[in-house]
Amino acid sequence: MKKLSIILGTICMMALPAMAQEKKTLTLEELILGGNRNFSLQPEYVFTTWWGDKPVITDVESASVINLKNGEQTTILTLEPLKKLIKDEGLGNLSHLMSVEFVKGQNKAILQTNTHTVIYDLDKKNITESYPLVLGVQNRTPQPNGYNSAYTKGNNLYVMWDGKEHQVTNDPEGWLCGQSVHRNEFGINNGIFWSPKGNLVAFYRMDQSMVTDYPQVNTSTRISTLVPDKYPMAGMTSHKVYVGIHNPATQKTIYLKTADPTDRYFTNISWSPDEKNIFIIELNRDQNHAELIQYNSETGEKIATLYEETHPKYVEPEYPLTFLPWDDSKFIYQTQREGYNHLFLMDLNQPQQGIWKDCSAGGKCLEKLKTTQLTKGNWLVKEIVGFNSSTKELIGTSTEVSPLQSNPFALNLTNGKHRLIGFLNANHSISLSESGKYIIDNYTSANIARNIDIVSTNGKGKTMNLLTASNPMDQYNLPKPEIGTIKAADGVTDLYYRITKPSDFDPNKKYPAVIYVYGGPHAQMITNTRNYGASGWDIYMANHGYVVFTLDNRGSSNRGLLFENCTFRNLGTEEMKDQMKGVEFLKSTGFVDPDRIGVHGWSFGGFMTTNLMLTYNDIFKVGVAGGPVINWALYEVMYGERYMDTPESNPEGYKGNNLTLRAGDLKGKLQIIIGANDPVCVPQHTMSFLRACIDAGTQPDFFTYPGDEHNMRGRDRVHLYTRITQYFEDYLK
Amino acid sequence: MKKLSIILGTICMMALPAMAQEKKTLTLEELILGGNRNFSLQPEYVFTTWWGDKPVITDVESASVINLKNGEQTTILTLEPLKKLIKDEGLGNLSHLMSVEFVKGQNKAILQTNTHTVIYDLDKKNITESYPLVLGVQNRTPQPNGYNSAYTKGNNLYVMWDGKEHQVTNDPEGWLCGQSVHRNEFGINNGIFWSPKGNLVAFYRMDQSMVTDYPQVNTSTRISTLVPDKYPMAGMTSHKVYVGIHNPATQKTIYLKTADPTDRYFTNISWSPDEKNIFIIELNRDQNHAELIQYNSETGEKIATLYEETHPKYVEPEYPLTFLPWDDSKFIYQTQREGYNHLFLMDLNQPQQGIWKDCSAGGKCLEKLKTTQLTKGNWLVKEIVGFNSSTKELIGTSTEVSPLQSNPFALNLTNGKHRLIGFLNANHSISLSESGKYIIDNYTSANIARNIDIVSTNGKGKTMNLLTASNPMDQYNLPKPEIGTIKAADGVTDLYYRITKPSDFDPNKKYPAVIYVYGGPHAQMITNTRNYGASGWDIYMANHGYVVFTLDNRGSSNRGLLFENCTFRNLGTEEMKDQMKGVEFLKSTGFVDPDRIGVHGWSFGGFMTTNLMLTYNDIFKVGVAGGPVINWALYEVMYGERYMDTPESNPEGYKGNNLTLRAGDLKGKLQIIIGANDPVCVPQHTMSFLRACIDAGTQPDFFTYPGDEHNMRGRDRVHLYTRITQYFEDYLK
Repeated sequence: MKKLSIILGTICMMALPAMAQEKKTLTLEELILGGNRNFSLQPEYVFTTWWGDKPVITDVESASVINLKNGEQTTILTLEPLKKLIKDEGLGNLSHLMSVEFVKGQNKAILQTNTHTVIYDLDKKNITESYPLVLGVQNRTPQPNGYNSAYTKGNNLYVMWDGKEHQVTNDPEGWLCGQSVHRNEFGINNGIFWSPKGNLVAFYRMDQSMVTDYPQVNTSTRISTLVPDKYPMAGMTSHKVYVGIHNPATQKTIYLKTADPTDRYFTNISWSPDEKNIFIIELNRDQNHAELIQYNSETGEKIATLYEETHPKYVEPEYPLTFLPWDDSKFIYQTQREGYNHLFLMDLNQPQQGIWKDCSAGGKCLEKLKTTQLTKGNWLVKEIVGFNSSTKELIGTSTEVSPLQSNPFALNLTNGKHRLIGFLNANHSISLSESGKYIIDNYTSANIARNIDIVSTNGKGKTMNLLTASNPMDQYNLPKPEIGTIKAADGVTDLYYRITKPSDFDPNKKYPAVIYVYGGPHAQMITNTRNYGASGWDIYMANHGYVVFTLDNRGSSNRGLLFENCTFRNLGTEEMKDQMKGVEFLKSTGFVDPDRIGVHGWSFGGFMTTNLMLTYNDIFKVGVAGGPVINWALYEVMYGERYMDTPESNPEGYKGNNLTLRAGDLKGKLQIIIGANDPVCVPQHTMSFLRACIDAGTQPDFFTYPGDEHNMRGRDRVHLYTRITQYFEDYLK
Repeated sequence: MKKLSIILGTICMMALPAMAQEKKTLTLEELILGGNRNFSLQPEYVFTTWWGDKPVITDVESASVINLKNGEQTTILTLEPLKKLIKDEGLGNLSHLMSVEFVKGQNKAILQTNTHTVIYDLDKKNITESYPLVLGVQNRTPQPNGYNSAYTKGNNLYVMWDGKEHQVTNDPEGWLCGQSVHRNEFGINNGIFWSPKGNLVAFYRMDQSMVTDYPQVNTSTRISTLVPDKYPMAGMTSHKVYVGIHNPATQKTIYLKTADPTDRYFTNISWSPDEKNIFIIELNRDQNHAELIQYNSETGEKIATLYEETHPKYVEPEYPLTFLPWDDSKFIYQTQREGYNHLFLMDLNQPQQGIWKDCSAGGKCLEKLKTTQLTKGNWLVKEIVGFNSSTKELIGTSTEVSPLQSNPFALNLTNGKHRLIGFLNANHSISLSESGKYIIDNYTSANIARNIDIVSTNGKGKTMNLLTASNPMDQYNLPKPEIGTIKAADGVTDLYYRITKPSDFDPNKKYPAVIYVYGGPHAQMITNTRNYGASGWDIYMANHGYVVFTLDNRGSSNRGLLFENCTFRNLGTEEMKDQMKGVEFLKSTGFVDPDRIGVHGWSFGGFMTTNLMLTYNDIFKVGVAGGPVINWALYEVMYGERYMDTPESNPEGYKGNNLTLRAGDLKGKLQIIIGANDPVCVPQHTMSFLRACIDAGTQPDFFTYPGDEHNMRGRDRVHLYTRITQYFEDYLK
């Protein structure tokens, strides 16, 4: 088997000078994403896809199928002749073969040029079909098993059907159709949902006309221009969402006859395999009562409420239904009602009266279908990847081995037993073959830069290695992050920390320490991946004489519902208590100078940073807070009210962590940095904090990236981390 | 004569603790305007007014007339009984007597309460008349010799006439009536002009509907709100101005039949004494051709063009006509056509054909009336204060003694001779008695904290001293600013500088130096006033070990037209050359450390600071630029095009000092500070500079004051100077 060595560098078409072994110091250009030479530190990578059950390596120049018996590679596609053939046919430019796909059950490849989708017959070696891409549109969503597509232009939805475009919605400004709604909460990230057979298109339609505009300003035009952005703030009037179903053949559209969409969330749209039903998990504005509702996709009529769940704090549905491929009446519902996200099998053919019953995580549920819990334990299912229909197994990933990683598993739906697949001590990302018999298993750990294996899902087949990437960082004398656990402020819960010390670490010295913090829900900083998830900046700072420390406090993700929701109505408070346990630990090591402790974080981490600087102003000398939340009343409805309720119903909670009220407590050096056009933590957070500091006579520092949104990307990120580093160098070192 | 000792402290109603003599260091709270204790450093002050030819001292509690023969004071009004009388009559609250005035030719005082104008008979000791104030309106302008008023509500003009309000204009949003136009250039600072006898009201009416909005944002509302501000940028479409004349008695309004108001400025509205004519100095958009035009105030018809003036660079009319009180046919026109602002007498009764003739400052003029130049010389008239009709003398102030100060003079209009009045070596501010025989002369110099004298304008009468204020700074061991001159970069022109050294100055030491710079037109930093015009911050910095230096470069004011207009079409270039002469001088002293030179300035001075940091980046180590112009294309039409023409007609000039193009040249530490709602140098200047620096990989620092406009006032100013000081302390010291 020839060595696979397609490195990211060549993929990015950049010239990569060989890195001299003697080179010892790395700059932010290497260590920061967006840096000119950041690619030089990335482990090798191989692009792959499945052709039925055959793995295919897709490179720039060629695609090669791998023989699962002996590992031999056979080139099946070569760029140059294909490129010429396609060009001669006037079907655009094919620039690489990395994203080639295959038509299910046929010896045909699907190639994307800049203008067409081209179907190439691998046997006949000719082009059998071609479909022009609809250009200049947004959110283009191809039909499954076909070549039509739905997309948006402006704020309306369109469909290209049999080569003809028609407009589906015709709504005025203030409405959005075919786009993600509810500010991407509840796992929502798109607004177009083709039915499984491709005959119908469900779509979101959102009326935002009643939502207040946040006045964003574009300062790059000849004279600055207003860019109004609908932003519903906690407690304020929110948008209304409708779910439409369009039949492209008849060009008819109906809307689901849901309850009043005022203050109601319509999440996790799922189709029944026969396309006759559509399922929505609906949630009240208070987000403490979820209902799984079945609708008739032809009439829009409600058929039944299938499942309900309540919780005194919040219920957060994030996953659509997954139907069993071999039984259209059964689907898997995911909920963390027992404390961790687990799988429940529900049977449409077995409706029942049900009774409200207590769930172990503090909520209640009402099962209107016969329901079987499939997985359980103090770990959570992260992803359903697919099925093996022949063995009646579900293939997914979970945190069963460790909350710091995802491991593949196969769950037998006949007997309820499950087994782990692949190398245990690593974090896996997998892709399943058509039959479900094999996975391409891409995994990393603190010790594994990147391995890609082909693994049999039955746990018995021989594992074939496609790539064992070396870690380009190994050639440098770089700091090695370490991890461990300490007890949370509750005295019981184990929290993971990561510490990165200078490579020439001397335990008898006293080092300045920087705590990098996030601390909010839906994120985890410490993972069993390269450097335990430490960023290039952690490495850089440690390389420059700092101890860099991160702690995943209670409230962060992958540790279950109770770990997360202890922060309810008081975001920041418990999180900071845990962070102070981290500070205690740092001080106890003896090698951290207690007079030189700094803190840095972005977004929720910016909120934590600012809050820590104000609350523990004798501990933290220097902080850099990026895109911070300053006052939860200025944050949006969906995320904000889930964790904080409304300013009206939780005045103490909002007041307690409204940092403008504590601007006078600033003692150390605090620099706040924001994207001047941040649509997530709108600039008003920081502007009101600066005003409060000015009024209180305190002196924060401030910087802003004009044109940037919530995060700085590309070259701006290198500029940003140069800036952040300088601040610690100026004031902490 | 009893000692006059009304100090500003008691006027401000603040408690003033006696300042201990031993106190040596002063904080920014004392030294910065807006500081809690700034009043403690202000010299004493006396409020005065004229009652015909009798001077009156107006205090909080009483008003006393001064006998000009012997200086004796007689109390003529006492607050408490008046306050009671007025309250009993239900005419509001009289809180002090500082702003009392007197009815011309009568023994009556005019008192302002919070709700009424009250006329009090000094003989009968009773209230004879009262007029309710129109409350909740803007730009209230009282009728001369009467108690009616004109004012604005929203964007329209209203008149209160004989106790009844009527609306004069009814224009939609985008129009402004009765308010200042042309962004307060050309000496314009109001929009309501009562005729001399009070029978008619002339007013500005401006159509801004075609002007682009600058999107200012108010971040203090529950959700930030847009505050659009009409801002015509250089080269872009500007507003149109109309001049209306309203007759309150008939409630009829006519508009002057001027030339097309597109790209035309209507400046310096003046009435004829008989109210039959109105005069406008009109200017083309290029601002190089001024025309004095006479209109019929009843019909609005143009009567005649009386005077024209052109200049290859610009003509800048800033003063309305001044009619002689004893001859309604003669008025004084002010122009710097001969290089300095001087007085020209024009006679309406002597029209003439005239011919275009060259003026000594490089322009041309056409006199259509017989014209007599009244003053001449390399100095300028600053103000016409009034007349003495009996001697046919004009009383004014000029820079004849020194460009650093104003001195009163009397000009005999019969024989053309003039003489200076009062103490020569000081800067004067005067108020003329009714007959013109006396002035109340308030003067200061580097050595005089504040004197107030009563001086006879005939130059012969005995001078009576009302106040010789001590300088509260004298009790501290404070740095003493010094001044001198150096040659400009042209090798010829003398430029004034001011240097402030630490009070414990040692010429053998090397000090860090901060250059405080303005440098733009219409301002002069060095004056013969207390501390030669040095700010409290100059003193503070010198007190903390810095040498503080300021140079009034070519382009600044009070030195004549050619001194000013050498910067035409290249704002910044000549100015910086001169500033570098200042740096050369500083280095030549031997006591300035050439490696620790900083610079600070605001507005035009912020532009200069940023420009110097980029252009002479090996010289300047640290800069703080406030509210800077970064790119003249983003500045407004009137000021911008006067000095720079348009971006289309002067691309090289605009490019040459567009600092975004040189963002990559930043080497030192530069902090830019702006008011987040600056309507003068809009935030786009700094935002585009920050973007350019980010793109170029340079690292300016930035701070903004939310809610503040072009300058920080009150407490914010103390915060600002604390911040600026800290920056120099961190990086320059």
